[in-house]
Amino acid sequence: MTPAISKIVKEIQPSATLSLKEEIGSLEKEYGVKIVDLTAGQPDTGPTEDVLEALLEGGKLHQYGPVQGDPELRGILSEIISKEIGVRYDSQDIAITVGVKGGIDILMRVLLEPGEKAGIIAPYWVTYPESVRLAHGIPYFLESDDALRPDPARLRKEAEDNNIKVLLYSSPSNPSGVVYTEDELEEIAKIVKEKDMWVISDEIYGGFVFNGRKHKSILSIEGMRSNAILVDGPSKRFGVPGWRIGYVAGPREVIAALTKLQGHTNSGASRPEQYAMRVAYTSEKAREATDHMRQRYERNRNIFVKGLNEIDGISCIKPEGAFYAFPSIKKLFGHEYEFAGKEYMIKTSVDFRDFLLRKAQVAGVEGAPFGMDGYIRFSLATKQENIAKALTNIKDAVKKL
Amino acid sequence: MTPAISKIVKEIQPSATLSLKEEIGSLEKEYGVKIVDLTAGQPDTGPTEDVLEALLEGGKLHQYGPVQGDPELRGILSEIISKEIGVRYDSQDIAITVGVKGGIDILMRVLLEPGEKAGIIAPYWVTYPESVRLAHGIPYFLESDDALRPDPARLRKEAEDNNIKVLLYSSPSNPSGVVYTEDELEEIAKIVKEKDMWVISDEIYGGFVFNGRKHKSILSIEGMRSNAILVDGPSKRFGVPGWRIGYVAGPREVIAALTKLQGHTNSGASRPEQYAMRVAYTSEKAREATDHMRQRYERNRNIFVKGLNEIDGISCIKPEGAFYAFPSIKKLFGHEYEFAGKEYMIKTSVDFRDFLLRKAQVAGVEGAPFGMDGYIRFSLATKQENIAKALTNIKDAVKKL
Repeated sequence: MTPAISKIVKEIQPSATLSLKEEIGSLEKEYGVKIVDLTAGQPDTGPTEDVLEALLEGGKLHQYGPVQGDPELRGILSEIISKEIGVRYDSQDIAITVGVKGGIDILMRVLLEPGEKAGIIAPYWVTYPESVRLAHGIPYFLESDDALRPDPARLRKEAEDNNIKVLLYSSPSNPSGVVYTEDELEEIAKIVKEKDMWVISDEIYGGFVFNGRKHKSILSIEGMRSNAILVDGPSKRFGVPGWRIGYVAGPREVIAALTKLQGHTNSGASRPEQYAMRVAYTSEKAREATDHMRQRYERNRNIFVKGLNEIDGISCIKPEGAFYAFPSIKKLFGHEYEFAGKEYMIKTSVDFRDFLLRKAQVAGVEGAPFGMDGYIRFSLATKQENIAKALTNIKDAVKKL
Repeated sequence: MTPAISKIVKEIQPSATLSLKEEIGSLEKEYGVKIVDLTAGQPDTGPTEDVLEALLEGGKLHQYGPVQGDPELRGILSEIISKEIGVRYDSQDIAITVGVKGGIDILMRVLLEPGEKAGIIAPYWVTYPESVRLAHGIPYFLESDDALRPDPARLRKEAEDNNIKVLLYSSPSNPSGVVYTEDELEEIAKIVKEKDMWVISDEIYGGFVFNGRKHKSILSIEGMRSNAILVDGPSKRFGVPGWRIGYVAGPREVIAALTKLQGHTNSGASRPEQYAMRVAYTSEKAREATDHMRQRYERNRNIFVKGLNEIDGISCIKPEGAFYAFPSIKKLFGHEYEFAGKEYMIKTSVDFRDFLLRKAQVAGVEGAPFGMDGYIRFSLATKQENIAKALTNIKDAVKKL
């Protein structure tokens, strides 16, 4: 018999996309089918050649580096933030982390006392509530309006009633693709300031805003320098999620605290990848590759969302950024279907996900772990032919319901 | 004004070696001297060419990988553990982490409830107590005997009185170089079993045991499979601390819990480095490089420790492994010296460290953050000429005290 492990382990849910991978594999094997996999939270393309070559060069940085991250990379990111967000963060006010996850994990430990609340705008990225729980904080969920847009009136009331210490959201949003407008950000900023809250703005999808619109950050709103913290990284923009690099920019005391903790939690990100990111963030080739990705995702969005909305029982807001579609499938709850001699009823987003897997050979991620059970998330970071095939299959399967 | 940050940030001490780097730099600049830097907690050599080349190949793994780590690398590590420790851990019972720090950080969160105690055998690696505090646990320090060896009688009593949940030590020890004997490990194992504790065995220096002795692990002791957890990694063995790879082997439920948490804390280590480690752990060249490192460290130890013990007021146990010397300098407390027109008295290990920096142009790390204030740590992972120069300088400076 082993000794006991901590209660928190039982409270944490494993990542929803991971368990799904196994199910896809076993279905394909058992029924000899090929499933169109739209579960990926990552680009289907990789880094450009110049970035890949820089990794080898960076391999020579084999000794411990600065815990806060490569100073040259931080200098480059300082320029990127200036250019893209329009505010100045010195390299001292930036820390490199082990992905955005690594940044959020330490930030929660820096900002929250055990028992304090973090407000999470739903729908949200699956890791947010778990990162709050892992810091012994309490996640508090803030509903969006019916169009999946942030609801400042509700937010103000909830912040008032619940003593929320940290507010957390992503824009462009994973999973909904909603991109917060300047007005919405200003409303949120006002509440953050009034209630003396921290706000963590996850802008990992900032490179993917459609229709020629420009990405807007809460960091650019007056008065936010003391309250707002940016998390971002190269994973989506340059197709390198497996390289585990992210960064955090914010008030100097927060970055100093994060760095102090990071010195004991993992010493920071791998140096060869940090070196390669110097190249990625300054490479014309890499910039063009990102542009090309955005164009592909936008084209896929146009086709897929139009197609989804033509299906009875499914309705999808038009994503303004990121690379997901997040349709409502609530109206299909209560329907029954038969598979491999068994009867099933669709009552939850997990049931709908299983229905699509079994009857349409299409894999999406159920909405529940994103905080909205009447929805399902599909990734648009795939080939156009997969988008077309998925649409046809979903349409046919739903029709037979 | 920014909102409040958590109390734990104030409780955590920044890594002792980092602040020292700055002080060395400013002394060198201000006084135009060259300081012999023996502070490094890392090899002064890097990976072999074949490993470096594998990093580029590994760069193609740019998408998310398994959170538990590369299955092929885990398979190789399973073989390494079999061969070197003599016990079988399946690849399922091994997880790759962001360095050993990354492993210990998650382990503490997996094993400790807030307020529970972790027993740390002193002297200890500076990060151990901080990793316990970061999990909201309480570090409890267990003194060694005068020869810096573990003291099972004391350990038994302390475990009895203090309800210690997790025991944590390194062997070969950083900073002392003590290598636990089979008898000592058996005594510890008995207590761990009796008191139903977890034990985390940090064996990162396992590749560096001197005098032809073989490294021994508590994992190989009967009954320990349910209680013992191994943390290790390639950083010291292959000279790649900047690549941030470590691993944990232990009971399946612990590895599963660690993996679940890692899925939200940072998604695991960089994939290119994991790929390169497949090569490192199976490369004859890399094995030879490690052998060569051990021979150099052993030769440096022989010269340096003999020399230190010839200095009045300094006494040093002979390290049996790792690459540090950890002499007692207690007898020099109370002595005074003059520098740049000012009078100083040596009252602590920090004072002695400053004395050496100023009067001997030698940098070591004070013993205090390792849990023993009457000591100082010197790294042996350096050129032989640095060892000789440091000895001469220390001898001359202490003589004038």
